[in-house]
Amino acid sequence: QRQRDERPTIEDFKGIQYTGDDSTFYINFRFRMQNRLKYTTIGGDDLGAEDFEARIRRLRLRMDGYIYNPRLSYSIQLGFTRGDQDYDDTDVVNIVRDAVVFYSFTDNFYVAFGQNKLPGNRQRVNSSGELQFAERSLVNATFNIDRDFGIKAYYSPKIGAIPIHLKGAISTGEGRVSTTTDNGLAYTGRAEFLPLGEFTNEGDYYEGDLEYEETPKLSFGGGYSYNDRTTRTGGQTGTYVMTPLTLKTTFYDAIFKYRGWAYQVEYMKRGVDNPFTTDEDGEVTYAFKGQGVNQQLSYLLDRKLGYEIAGRYTWIKPHRDIRAYEAQTEVIELGLTKYFRAHRLKLQFNASYNVEDGTYRTSHDGNNWAATFQIELGI
Amino acid sequence: QRQRDERPTIEDFKGIQYTGDDSTFYINFRFRMQNRLKYTTIGGDDLGAEDFEARIRRLRLRMDGYIYNPRLSYSIQLGFTRGDQDYDDTDVVNIVRDAVVFYSFTDNFYVAFGQNKLPGNRQRVNSSGELQFAERSLVNATFNIDRDFGIKAYYSPKIGAIPIHLKGAISTGEGRVSTTTDNGLAYTGRAEFLPLGEFTNEGDYYEGDLEYEETPKLSFGGGYSYNDRTTRTGGQTGTYVMTPLTLKTTFYDAIFKYRGWAYQVEYMKRGVDNPFTTDEDGEVTYAFKGQGVNQQLSYLLDRKLGYEIAGRYTWIKPHRDIRAYEAQTEVIELGLTKYFRAHRLKLQFNASYNVEDGTYRTSHDGNNWAATFQIELGI
Amino acid sequence: QRQRDERPTIEDFKGIQYTGDDSTFYINFRFRMQNRLKYTTIGGDDLGAEDFEARIRRLRLRMDGYIYNPRLSYSIQLGFTRGDQDYDDTDVVNIVRDAVVFYSFTDNFYVAFGQNKLPGNRQRVNSSGELQFAERSLVNATFNIDRDFGIKAYYSPKIGAIPIHLKGAISTGEGRVSTTTDNGLAYTGRAEFLPLGEFTNEGDYYEGDLEYEETPKLSFGGGYSYNDRTTRTGGQTGTYVMTPLTLKTTFYDAIFKYRGWAYQVEYMKRGVDNPFTTDEDGEVTYAFKGQGVNQQLSYLLDRKLGYEIAGRYTWIKPHRDIRAYEAQTEVIELGLTKYFRAHRLKLQFNASYNVEDGTYRTSHDGNNWAATFQIELGI
Repeated sequence: QRQRDERPTIEDFKGIQYTGDDSTFYINFRFRMQNRLKYTTIGGDDLGAEDFEARIRRLRLRMDGYIYNPRLSYSIQLGFTRGDQDYDDTDVVNIVRDAVVFYSFTDNFYVAFGQNKLPGNRQRVNSSGELQFAERSLVNATFNIDRDFGIKAYYSPKIGAIPIHLKGAISTGEGRVSTTTDNGLAYTGRAEFLPLGEFTNEGDYYEGDLEYEETPKLSFGGGYSYNDRTTRTGGQTGTYVMTPLTLKTTFYDAIFKYRGWAYQVEYMKRGVDNPFTTDEDGEVTYAFKGQGVNQQLSYLLDRKLGYEIAGRYTWIKPHRDIRAYEAQTEVIELGLTKYFRAHRLKLQFNASYNVEDGTYRTSHDGNNWAATFQIELGI
Repeated sequence: QRQRDERPTIEDFKGIQYTGDDSTFYINFRFRMQNRLKYTTIGGDDLGAEDFEARIRRLRLRMDGYIYNPRLSYSIQLGFTRGDQDYDDTDVVNIVRDAVVFYSFTDNFYVAFGQNKLPGNRQRVNSSGELQFAERSLVNATFNIDRDFGIKAYYSPKIGAIPIHLKGAISTGEGRVSTTTDNGLAYTGRAEFLPLGEFTNEGDYYEGDLEYEETPKLSFGGGYSYNDRTTRTGGQTGTYVMTPLTLKTTFYDAIFKYRGWAYQVEYMKRGVDNPFTTDEDGEVTYAFKGQGVNQQLSYLLDRKLGYEIAGRYTWIKPHRDIRAYEAQTEVIELGLTKYFRAHRLKLQFNASYNVEDGTYRTSHDGNNWAATFQIELGI
Repeated sequence: QRQRDERPTIEDFKGIQYTGDDSTFYINFRFRMQNRLKYTTIGGDDLGAEDFEARIRRLRLRMDGYIYNPRLSYSIQLGFTRGDQDYDDTDVVNIVRDAVVFYSFTDNFYVAFGQNKLPGNRQRVNSSGELQFAERSLVNATFNIDRDFGIKAYYSPKIGAIPIHLKGAISTGEGRVSTTTDNGLAYTGRAEFLPLGEFTNEGDYYEGDLEYEETPKLSFGGGYSYNDRTTRTGGQTGTYVMTPLTLKTTFYDAIFKYRGWAYQVEYMKRGVDNPFTTDEDGEVTYAFKGQGVNQQLSYLLDRKLGYEIAGRYTWIKPHRDIRAYEAQTEVIELGLTKYFRAHRLKLQFNASYNVEDGTYRTSHDGNNWAATFQIELGI
């Protein structure tokens, strides 16, 4: 089934479903796991192993449903792996990913109260099950605004035949680790335009064109997040800092699909007045100030068998303020994915070449290669 | 549905129910989440934000059931939020709240082996779903004896028409964090008398009078806990100490309900011979020695619509031994709650004024205001 | 039901079962808890309490099933107690025990990718629900190779009428805590021969003879694990070390069952070229180098009522390299178990005498007694 992380999956489910005797509640229970092997070389011309990543990348349980009637719905997601706990950054074991209540006033206007993803860049909002590479791009990793606790509103009007999605949030600004927060909150807004109409089966939040769109489909999106005086280097993510930072993140993205082809692009930029601060141990640290672009192009080789080939080009450029600490980085990546459609079963092979300072020579210091095999399985 | 935390919920359920093919086991699966926003002012006359509490306060999964026949039952509860893990105090991630096996010899005599709540003060034994304010009182927070691992016995005879509940426990005394313990155990006893007969639907362990009792109902309770040489400041709770403390906690409580009105009062007192000790870092710390009273009065404004208004007055007085570190504190609180009856759905607005040293002036140092909005949702 | 930890339990289940509407997936959900009281004396002739172990020893959820068809199956196990998290050794909260995908090419050849138990000594591979004592032996605790992330293959041919099980694994070598690993991997192989044919109901991986084998049954097993440059004292377990260790672990075991009698023996030996290294705090630490034997003999007193009596003799001898730090230890243990057959309900009483340096006198320093009561309950 398809999902948007912002909304509970209470239609078209494939998980364990249970409806109360008196139909006063409904629950849909799902799980998902991703097992991964990744080999990273020492350098561009030294193919020895720098390290292996060999682990359960994600193991998540999810419960979606409603109480009384579908207008009052909920979404809960728990993550159990070390990577999901965000423990290495925060020293807190964050098991809860989503715990949010929704109320739908109409079919195209609903509000949310609780913790879930912010309406940030498109790739972040895509559930990891909807991605076509094993990981999101380096642009996303560097600038995304992740999850936060707060109040959100979603409005989807139409201008003529053009669907529009407007999303806004006021949230703590410190991400899912937080229990109390100062009065420096985060304000996020995002708008999307779909000039060629809605994608089949909400395919604007699914990377590959598995639906094989018979007419071209396009979505433009853009947004802005103002995170006032956050105490973490990435706002909702990253390690703690002693002097609060105010982060201004801009994002533009687009996705186009047609007959098995999918192209998407994402531009992100983060401004910080003074990116330097100190962490809890008194060491100098900084927020990543700069910009980046990610582009992905894919083609569904065989609709029935579910083979897809994809390419990705990612570029990150740090602002000159932090140039002494961060290099310009590019990643070129190829992916082959085998999808099994009815459920979340996916086999992925990815190969990438990482380039520092714009110097493509394999002998350049900092360049290296990586190869990943990942299996994702879930209901 | 109603529940007493001491007993598994295996009657009158509303969760996901499953009975094995051969009826040799039964399981009732439920979850509950609480999302909260709380605003605390800097002072009584400075309404600026001291901080926001904006978080998932509780996210819990619960499984109750029996194996073979209802005499042999179990109760499991897991808590996943940071607040539930008790990590900030203990440096241990405590996910397991309840894991206990019950054996019922007769309908009114059963024993328990494992970890669950001790038979302490009434408000603590009430599940958080049965409360009428967003949090239990400061009296409870200061003196409650929480959960512990051990052996417990529950006996409910009648003297004439008067139901009596007798409860006893021998437990480790160090709460749910413990794996091994010294021979300083904790001994707890509690008795309850219901001179006007049983409450409708076990309403003596539910704060508001949602059942709208047609005849007056009353329960008196009292008990004592002797926690021999505990290594935590609060016995079953709090940070670790280097020199063991022996805590003697006395509690009396009563609840009265009649036609939508509910009144309850709780007196708690803790004695400690020498409350001062040192924590693991060698800093001086202490057990809270003193006493307190909490009173709550509520009225169900509209039985059908489920609106309830409630007031609370809480008073805590530290013993003179620790007066240099702790001030007398009072809290006056008003609450408006909207209950949706069939399930655990509850909207709560609370407003409170906190008074230090008995000085009600808003300009008094230490006084402040708070306002809370909370939504609780579960099956 | 019976299970082998290496394979998902998708036949003959007793848990919560759910099959998708279109039969494209199946899930079997189970839980298990163990509550324990253990009393350890100060010495062999001083019966005062050294400590009590009073805790939830295990609380686990398990999901097994398949997607599309039974050839593609999965197994997930989560452990929530402090003891299961392995936190005290690693400072990481390890909730995930198993997360593994299986593909069965034929009925007797399948491969696995993910994290689960390595094909090590028999007692370790037995699920804790299949054990006849409250804990595995000291030989197992000292030398077992536990769980690891990697690729495993299982092949079960027959030579004439003799079933053979061959198992192999390549894994990270650092156990379930690891996210990335160096190129020092672990290589494990194991073979089993069943000269008298298969045990009833896979009883070779269940300790007691609850099936009451009418003809004698026997399984021999042996294997070897080469853990190249691991960074933990026990390879897949233990605290971190600064200088990698290469561990060579050999194991031989056998189990024999006949008409209620069960006898099993396990020999394990670990070689380490230089067992001494330093931990993360710079303190000297070491890998346990040496050998040990565990033997267990049990008889099912009453097949219907499920009473079993068992004895155990365990012997551990450290290599002379670490003799200054570790003493020769023997444990003599008696157990009485009451099994309730249809489900995982088990009551266990164990009593043991622990002997250091081969000196059985109760006055010998280091000797002591222990008594355990444990209840296990699950579906």
